[in-house]
Amino acid sequence: MKKILLATTALVGFAGAASAEVSISGYAEMGIAGGNLGAVTQFFTDANVTFSMSGTTDGGLTFGAKVDLGSIPGNVGPGLTQGGETMYISGSFGKITMGDTDGALDWAAQEIYMGSAIADDHSSHAGAYWNSGLDGSAGGQIARYEYSFGSFAAAVSAEIDTSIANNDVFGVGVKYSGDFGGTKVGFGLGYQDNSVQSMYAVTANATMSNGIVINVGYADLDAQVIGANDTWAGIGVGYTTGALLVAANYGSYDVLGGPTVDGWGLVANYDLGGGAVVMAGYGTGDVAGGDEIGATYGSDESWSVGLGLSF
Amino acid sequence: MKKILLATTALVGFAGAASAEVSISGYAEMGIAGGNLGAVTQFFTDANVTFSMSGTTDGGLTFGAKVDLGSIPGNVGPGLTQGGETMYISGSFGKITMGDTDGALDWAAQEIYMGSAIADDHSSHAGAYWNSGLDGSAGGQIARYEYSFGSFAAAVSAEIDTSIANNDVFGVGVKYSGDFGGTKVGFGLGYQDNSVQSMYAVTANATMSNGIVINVGYADLDAQVIGANDTWAGIGVGYTTGALLVAANYGSYDVLGGPTVDGWGLVANYDLGGGAVVMAGYGTGDVAGGDEIGATYGSDESWSVGLGLSF
Amino acid sequence: MKKILLATTALVGFAGAASAEVSISGYAEMGIAGGNLGAVTQFFTDANVTFSMSGTTDGGLTFGAKVDLGSIPGNVGPGLTQGGETMYISGSFGKITMGDTDGALDWAAQEIYMGSAIADDHSSHAGAYWNSGLDGSAGGQIARYEYSFGSFAAAVSAEIDTSIANNDVFGVGVKYSGDFGGTKVGFGLGYQDNSVQSMYAVTANATMSNGIVINVGYADLDAQVIGANDTWAGIGVGYTTGALLVAANYGSYDVLGGPTVDGWGLVANYDLGGGAVVMAGYGTGDVAGGDEIGATYGSDESWSVGLGLSF
Repeated sequence: MKKILLATTALVGFAGAASAEVSISGYAEMGIAGGNLGAVTQFFTDANVTFSMSGTTDGGLTFGAKVDLGSIPGNVGPGLTQGGETMYISGSFGKITMGDTDGALDWAAQEIYMGSAIADDHSSHAGAYWNSGLDGSAGGQIARYEYSFGSFAAAVSAEIDTSIANNDVFGVGVKYSGDFGGTKVGFGLGYQDNSVQSMYAVTANATMSNGIVINVGYADLDAQVIGANDTWAGIGVGYTTGALLVAANYGSYDVLGGPTVDGWGLVANYDLGGGAVVMAGYGTGDVAGGDEIGATYGSDESWSVGLGLSF
Repeated sequence: MKKILLATTALVGFAGAASAEVSISGYAEMGIAGGNLGAVTQFFTDANVTFSMSGTTDGGLTFGAKVDLGSIPGNVGPGLTQGGETMYISGSFGKITMGDTDGALDWAAQEIYMGSAIADDHSSHAGAYWNSGLDGSAGGQIARYEYSFGSFAAAVSAEIDTSIANNDVFGVGVKYSGDFGGTKVGFGLGYQDNSVQSMYAVTANATMSNGIVINVGYADLDAQVIGANDTWAGIGVGYTTGALLVAANYGSYDVLGGPTVDGWGLVANYDLGGGAVVMAGYGTGDVAGGDEIGATYGSDESWSVGLGLSF
Repeated sequence: MKKILLATTALVGFAGAASAEVSISGYAEMGIAGGNLGAVTQFFTDANVTFSMSGTTDGGLTFGAKVDLGSIPGNVGPGLTQGGETMYISGSFGKITMGDTDGALDWAAQEIYMGSAIADDHSSHAGAYWNSGLDGSAGGQIARYEYSFGSFAAAVSAEIDTSIANNDVFGVGVKYSGDFGGTKVGFGLGYQDNSVQSMYAVTANATMSNGIVINVGYADLDAQVIGANDTWAGIGVGYTTGALLVAANYGSYDVLGGPTVDGWGLVANYDLGGGAVVMAGYGTGDVAGGDEIGATYGSDESWSVGLGLSF
């Protein structure tokens, strides 16, 4: 079978500045995953291909779309149902992104997690939170407008509920990034409301010149996870030296005077160059104790070791 | 993640005239859709990627295939089931196309619709017809042979029924295109028969030098849509000036002395250049009245406004 | 819609020896398939697109992944479920392949089949065997390590059972290829065990300078197909002259003193150049007779004629 060989980072040539482009990238994982969450220690493999498309209008607006092999791009329920695709248009007015994209809360708040594990063990334990807010609660068809001004950026978002409940989700977020004597600092604040629940998340992160990164986050979840008035707090600390990244994180869901669900994760990445990274991850959920849910201390843990391959 | 940047219209280079090629194109839609057909006014997004492959034999025959990300290319029921793909081979003998392609009636008859709407509102109302004939009634695995001679082209097609009914569909079509003093004129005539039903469609279209286009169509449907001896007639009128296209259409299904189902649509497209087009569409089905089906006049209407993005 | 034209065999250019690449290839089939296995003689079409990705680490290890449009790349049951993808890493230590790949038995044993038919008639009759061994019996997530030394290569493989039965599959294989006075000769020997069944397969093949190829195979199947102590034996003979390949094969499943299930196949391929091949195939299963299963001699037969198109 004949083949087309394409080299990454190669811009093939184009008919003019306004030409549309399609960018193809791939990602694969191979290794071993285990822990008492799965039945047995097992081989772990995954692969995907992503198509990133972009263009420019005659008036200088840029636009694009992204879809991957695992998406469902069919125009199901004529285009009102989400299949994983996103698209955007941007210009001096700002940027509008639609589809399977972050609401303004998730856009503004930064995750506490660093590094990658093939089975995401370090970032998917019982205490993990991804600032997802109310995203996806109303069909997953999200529209977000964002605008940058100097070190600040702000966004508003909407997700229209098509059910009878009609609980449309609206969100607003703002974030800041700056440099203080070699330490890069970032802050994020996001808010979402669906007329039944209202949530906010606030995050801060610092990247020091010695390779240490500290991320912290706090979120008020309004009964989204473990009960009334639940909140989440987490911290992630990482260190990069040469090709090596090691990181740890801890997160806890709490209800005032009530139960707690927490967990922690560890990850190590070693970059082999050329797109290959050795990845090891561990995560455990501390689901037990006096004021905590469940009865078995640290009963759910998972780990994985393998390669992450980018093309 | 590393990326391959490919520019549209770039022919990368090839090993010889007989080399096979793969062409990648993308299309995305983003906007808002509403009307009483859907539950509520809602965001609308869609994206797809199409792979168009072609090659040439040593003897000068050209061949190709087309499949997209939303197709189901698996060899289900060993290749006898259709997943949306098409393939062809052509030469001086003509062209044979197989797969999810038009039968000879649809190939010969031209649609009355112009322009695009992200939710296809203008061309999917209750009175719309797409000259689909009996295509898809026998499994959807179609083979069509076509041949061109001067201003004329003709085609025959077959779709083999695998059910016990054994109602194979055969079709024949002919079309003409010419130029009369700056006005481009086209005619199409198609016929299909499955030994139970027999249908025909006749269409005519004129594209004037002042930017006005008129398309008309008539089809005898033989109880395919609303009853015995049903027919369809429609007209579409469009006007293009600079980057703007506006078009309207009307279509009606009728039974002699019986009910009528009709509808009309409007569409406006403004080309921003570089592949981005602003699209607005409206469609409504006039399903009511004395000799008409249903009781609520114009009860089903839909509209959409957004961007169509080609890559 | 704008398009990207890519020519096969074109290396677009790259940022350095360690750059990752994505190779795109396509395959399509069009024709007619029949025989009393299907209900009626019917059109047959199929198409697929394959993404082959590769890269090199700074230390000189090569790695890659392959996934196609028909795969299910979603990280189902986090990466523990197979969707058809494979990935590898190789270096002076050998090569490790994971995913939907051959176990060591299938890797070592060579199929007896030559040529292609659009519906695989010649190689999918009742007597056909593909040296699949126990592959897929434990979830299909396979890891294989292989190493070459001179004319020899060896492999070991594992497939971990996630069910309660816990019947992990382990395999070992060795193969040889050499040249004796212009005749290329190959041998393969593979063994697999899942603690309930143990299987082996042995194959030999010779490719003569006059265009004749002979492949033979024998496998002990340990009750995998038609009963206790079942075995399989087969032979394939092919002849290539210019653009034409013709081949025949015969295979038989036997139980000592018990029933027999056998079949034979014919195939002819004519290469039109540029990636297009005319393909005709026939297969029949001889499922009858005294010590054989069933009562109708040669009752299951299938045939197909068409084009295989590579891009």
